[in-house]
Amino acid sequence: MKSIEVVSGPESSVTVNLLKRDNLSQTSHNDRPHLVDPWKAQKPWQWTRTLVKGCMLRTRSVLGMLGKIEWYGFAALGILTAFLSFLMDLSVAKLLRAHQWLYVQLEGHCLLQFLCWTLYPAALCALSASFSHNICPFSTGSGVPEVRTMLSGMEMPHYLSLTNMFAKFLGLICTLAAGSTVFLGKVGPFVHLSTMVGAYLSHLCTLIQDKEEKKNIEGQMMVVAAAVGVASCFGAPISGVLFSVEVMCSHFALRDYCPCFFSAACGALTFRLLSVWSGERETLEALFKTDLSDALPFYPLEILLFASLGLLCGAVSCVYLFCHRWILRFIKTKPLLIRMLTTEKGLYSAMVAFILASVTFPHSAGQYMASKYTMKQLLVSLLDNRPWNSHSHNATLELDPNPGGEWLSSEHLPHLALGVFLLMKLWMLVLACTLPLPAGYFMPVFIYGAAIGRLAGDSLGYVSTRMSSGQDWVALNPGGYALAGAAAFSGAVTHTLSPALLALELTGQFSHAAPVLLATLLANGLARSGQRPSFYDALSISKKLPHLPSLLKACPRIRAVTVGHSLGRKGMVLEKTAGLMEVQRVLHSSTETEFPVVESFGSQILLGSIYRSDLQTFLHRTKDEVAEKQLADICTIYPTSVQLSTHSTIQEAHGILSMLGSQTLFVTEGGRLAGLITWPEMKRILEDIAKDI
Amino acid sequence: MKSIEVVSGPESSVTVNLLKRDNLSQTSHNDRPHLVDPWKAQKPWQWTRTLVKGCMLRTRSVLGMLGKIEWYGFAALGILTAFLSFLMDLSVAKLLRAHQWLYVQLEGHCLLQFLCWTLYPAALCALSASFSHNICPFSTGSGVPEVRTMLSGMEMPHYLSLTNMFAKFLGLICTLAAGSTVFLGKVGPFVHLSTMVGAYLSHLCTLIQDKEEKKNIEGQMMVVAAAVGVASCFGAPISGVLFSVEVMCSHFALRDYCPCFFSAACGALTFRLLSVWSGERETLEALFKTDLSDALPFYPLEILLFASLGLLCGAVSCVYLFCHRWILRFIKTKPLLIRMLTTEKGLYSAMVAFILASVTFPHSAGQYMASKYTMKQLLVSLLDNRPWNSHSHNATLELDPNPGGEWLSSEHLPHLALGVFLLMKLWMLVLACTLPLPAGYFMPVFIYGAAIGRLAGDSLGYVSTRMSSGQDWVALNPGGYALAGAAAFSGAVTHTLSPALLALELTGQFSHAAPVLLATLLANGLARSGQRPSFYDALSISKKLPHLPSLLKACPRIRAVTVGHSLGRKGMVLEKTAGLMEVQRVLHSSTETEFPVVESFGSQILLGSIYRSDLQTFLHRTKDEVAEKQLADICTIYPTSVQLSTHSTIQEAHGILSMLGSQTLFVTEGGRLAGLITWPEMKRILEDIAKDI
Repeated sequence: MKSIEVVSGPESSVTVNLLKRDNLSQTSHNDRPHLVDPWKAQKPWQWTRTLVKGCMLRTRSVLGMLGKIEWYGFAALGILTAFLSFLMDLSVAKLLRAHQWLYVQLEGHCLLQFLCWTLYPAALCALSASFSHNICPFSTGSGVPEVRTMLSGMEMPHYLSLTNMFAKFLGLICTLAAGSTVFLGKVGPFVHLSTMVGAYLSHLCTLIQDKEEKKNIEGQMMVVAAAVGVASCFGAPISGVLFSVEVMCSHFALRDYCPCFFSAACGALTFRLLSVWSGERETLEALFKTDLSDALPFYPLEILLFASLGLLCGAVSCVYLFCHRWILRFIKTKPLLIRMLTTEKGLYSAMVAFILASVTFPHSAGQYMASKYTMKQLLVSLLDNRPWNSHSHNATLELDPNPGGEWLSSEHLPHLALGVFLLMKLWMLVLACTLPLPAGYFMPVFIYGAAIGRLAGDSLGYVSTRMSSGQDWVALNPGGYALAGAAAFSGAVTHTLSPALLALELTGQFSHAAPVLLATLLANGLARSGQRPSFYDALSISKKLPHLPSLLKACPRIRAVTVGHSLGRKGMVLEKTAGLMEVQRVLHSSTETEFPVVESFGSQILLGSIYRSDLQTFLHRTKDEVAEKQLADICTIYPTSVQLSTHSTIQEAHGILSMLGSQTLFVTEGGRLAGLITWPEMKRILEDIAKDI
Repeated sequence: MKSIEVVSGPESSVTVNLLKRDNLSQTSHNDRPHLVDPWKAQKPWQWTRTLVKGCMLRTRSVLGMLGKIEWYGFAALGILTAFLSFLMDLSVAKLLRAHQWLYVQLEGHCLLQFLCWTLYPAALCALSASFSHNICPFSTGSGVPEVRTMLSGMEMPHYLSLTNMFAKFLGLICTLAAGSTVFLGKVGPFVHLSTMVGAYLSHLCTLIQDKEEKKNIEGQMMVVAAAVGVASCFGAPISGVLFSVEVMCSHFALRDYCPCFFSAACGALTFRLLSVWSGERETLEALFKTDLSDALPFYPLEILLFASLGLLCGAVSCVYLFCHRWILRFIKTKPLLIRMLTTEKGLYSAMVAFILASVTFPHSAGQYMASKYTMKQLLVSLLDNRPWNSHSHNATLELDPNPGGEWLSSEHLPHLALGVFLLMKLWMLVLACTLPLPAGYFMPVFIYGAAIGRLAGDSLGYVSTRMSSGQDWVALNPGGYALAGAAAFSGAVTHTLSPALLALELTGQFSHAAPVLLATLLANGLARSGQRPSFYDALSISKKLPHLPSLLKACPRIRAVTVGHSLGRKGMVLEKTAGLMEVQRVLHSSTETEFPVVESFGSQILLGSIYRSDLQTFLHRTKDEVAEKQLADICTIYPTSVQLSTHSTIQEAHGILSMLGSQTLFVTEGGRLAGLITWPEMKRILEDIAKDI
């Protein structure tokens, strides 16, 4: 395993990953696994493969006339992801409707209704958890921490496999079908799914691409795929790209900007067109289109109220993040929980889902928290611009059924229902985060924030009616507060600003742009103060992923760790004057693709590096000759462009590896070779650091 | 001059720039100009300065309790820029109204009207040009190419001076007051103005800041200022940040993301609140608020029409960019023009403005191109969602005066007026770009694009009425096409995507998000194909600025240029065994702050570097002792963390300098010191390259 990772050389993760599965038996005996043409290897369906390759080559020549191949890849990525997203929404809607139908049919039989209400999500969660446990254990969770670790340069082939995609897709459908009871979302896993689609598409592209351009495409496709995930999930291209930029990178290369937007636009357009064609909508419009009044969306001085709401959301997000970090630590310290979460994932998930469902049962506490609503209905009801006061309830019914229907079910003021909802959902959400199944954590947080905003908006409206003659009630728009709250809270939890734009794109309304952005900024300011890790950072640290930025947040002393401190073996080194024997020895005892060349073993002064293929040419040319030739006489020694010293920090080394996109960096001390840093080496170093935290 | 630039050492451009003006006489005699405390130097108003400093220190301690100082700086930057922007809009509006009033008063006297129409803008342009020529010649043009060169790391102190700010502000007011005749905008110069404000604020922040944090603030403030410029200009925070990211950087560091949005939001909020308080608007709303129908903004299949519009805009942008590049070359080859543009800027500007005004005179060709409209009115009329057909003209008049009034002045179809407008404005705009006065080129391009879109939308509407029974006329919304055209064309000209979002933010309407983004993407794809330089790249190349990304576009062979090829002098080098005499000699003959230390002059093996202050300590400690001490015995030799080799490319060196934020990079070859790369050295290299293109 180790040897394969090391040979990856000029190829990047995706290809190696694919080769690994195809040629696992060959690689250990073969010196040059990365040069094997996957089409020529001994595989079944030889004839079909040749046919497919022929077709693809012909397609390439046709497409190549119109533009660069990778752009077709980006378009295909967007369209495929949107299609997957639409398919998932469709299946989830059907499963949710089935549950609803069954529940209504059992009207009158309270026990049966209770069983239906609790066992359905419990069974689905158990199915999802055991499915992902048995087929691909890497498919649990949101996937965002893993994707950003991969984007930072690490190779994590398990997370891009086909089985993972399959398990994640089906598992996610089950999770979402459990509905608002379990209260989990779709975004994170969808980002992960789209990177898997991207990995396969980039493999397809590289098969029909010239060799020089291969490297670029593979890296770029991953960045693009992360952006497309969010865009296809909500049909929101702009905020999708921004969200992925904020969450995924610490430096964003502008050359990825256009591909990201192109692919995200393709995805969002396809997603919206599919919902038009399926008859759901009349034209391409926002997912949660609202109708906040355009004429006078808010009074200028309400800006101050929006700012306070932002601060409130920031404070609540700190509480939520603290609880989340606490439970992540807690489930790792209790032996019983550890055992359940490693062997009995299905049982654990079923139990947790059962508890959550019992609490939300509509005939018990559920009636105070609008538990009959699905996630989408919850968001729509919270963003509704009409106030939920009981006395206007009957009046608005004629215009449109149920403005805040479920929230008013038991003749209470909606404030009470919202308060209960907020209190209960906080611990329920934290508990749901421990479920070992594919699930997203963004949407629940977004809805929770909307509820905070709605509560604030309704309360303010209530107070203003009491204080004034009653005409201000209409003017204070609670939907706008819900929008600002959703953006501010989800932004604070994930330490991002793009939810502000997402909120605008989801509702298709720009009138509240300024207050929403302000609230999100202030909430972020509060949440980021004190250098606490974000939601995804906490997951990353808890999973001990080799992701440098989140490690830096958890443990700032890593900034001072130098390369020399954790430098591993030096590998095979060649002398400038090496002869036939030495080259043969090096070629046989190592599988590296690049070897450092020093002036002499005594001085260890680094001259440059030499490639395996050049060494093979050297062997070939000197075998027949009588006179002993030296390495430097025949081969070109490629000078190294950048050298690290043993005093460079890990952070600098990581940055330079990412910037240059190079596979090997040589570390010298006073001109003498001290070691080398490659991506696998960097991964090892970071994993060692992560273990100690 | 050269020596001062070299000593800049650990301080960055802004401080050095300020010091330069203050201490110009001192620096040449002083070994350590960067350590001079500007408050302690011999300056007038000593008492007042001490008082001010005292106040600021007290403010700092109060503010410091609430949060970091720089955040107040960011907020102040946004608010100040917005205030400047509002002030400018107010003055320009007054000047425009004066012109309009005079023109109306002269009704009936055609000659006098002609003189009023032509001489007013000619005089204003002459004033603007001679003002900027005499006060600060660096204030002409858009400023965006210069700002992005500074953001790439170069020091260009002249572009941040107070006189420049003054000249640019007043010059820009004159340019804008010349109105739609000269057809120039505000965005670019405003970005430049806000960087100047930012430079001064960062100087203010560093005065009351701890030393370690100084470096960060100065760099960050510049990035933030660039974002604030656009945001305060239009009250569009999100697209402002994105535009500056796209235009300014090739890599964007995510740690600048929050400050950018915070400052931009402050700017946009202030700008909008100011227009509320001045009575212009009722609440915070978009600058060009439109009222495109929300119910069914467009049919799904219209997406294809929007895509074609995008391609059309891309094609037109290529023509425009070609003409622009041609005229930039043309005015540099004709001796007469060169002489006029160097000595008689006022005369040249007046002449060009006179020609442009004569052409747009409403009693001649101007009647076919709605020349009575100001820039804002032009945009509003183009984005209007009502069709301009003559027969519905009278009907809509009752609802709202003049839907497309000026466009229909002479009983022609609006298509003709738009066609004439497009044809004439193309060469007029290209000609206006040669004017040597502070002026923005984004807004004209945006309006031009809107006209293209409007023409396409109206024509399609016309065709669809002829083909169908007439009811489709209302359904095809020409305002939406104008919006898409504006975004697509301006995006293609500047090679950016953010105009798509800007168009949405300016109109406050999200219903057309998908088609606008699609059109912008396709237009960009067409404009970028063939690696042609963008509008700003062309300006940058024409001005021979040391901006690497645009140089790379103009001349891709620069990618292969190595550091060794253009390495300058090595500077002073110290031996490990250097004694008192040698250190004294080095200190006296050079003003550098950091010196490389080698093992011996013979081997030239690089050990690390040593700071000037350490050398001074060495002198101090060894002066009194009898025994001859060596450098390495007393001083710490700081190891270099990253070394370049002579085979590194200029691009790699530039990237590593930017990434590490370091001031000196050592270049070695086989461990031996070959030279060093600093920012001034990099600037020299790039300027040499730019001269040869």
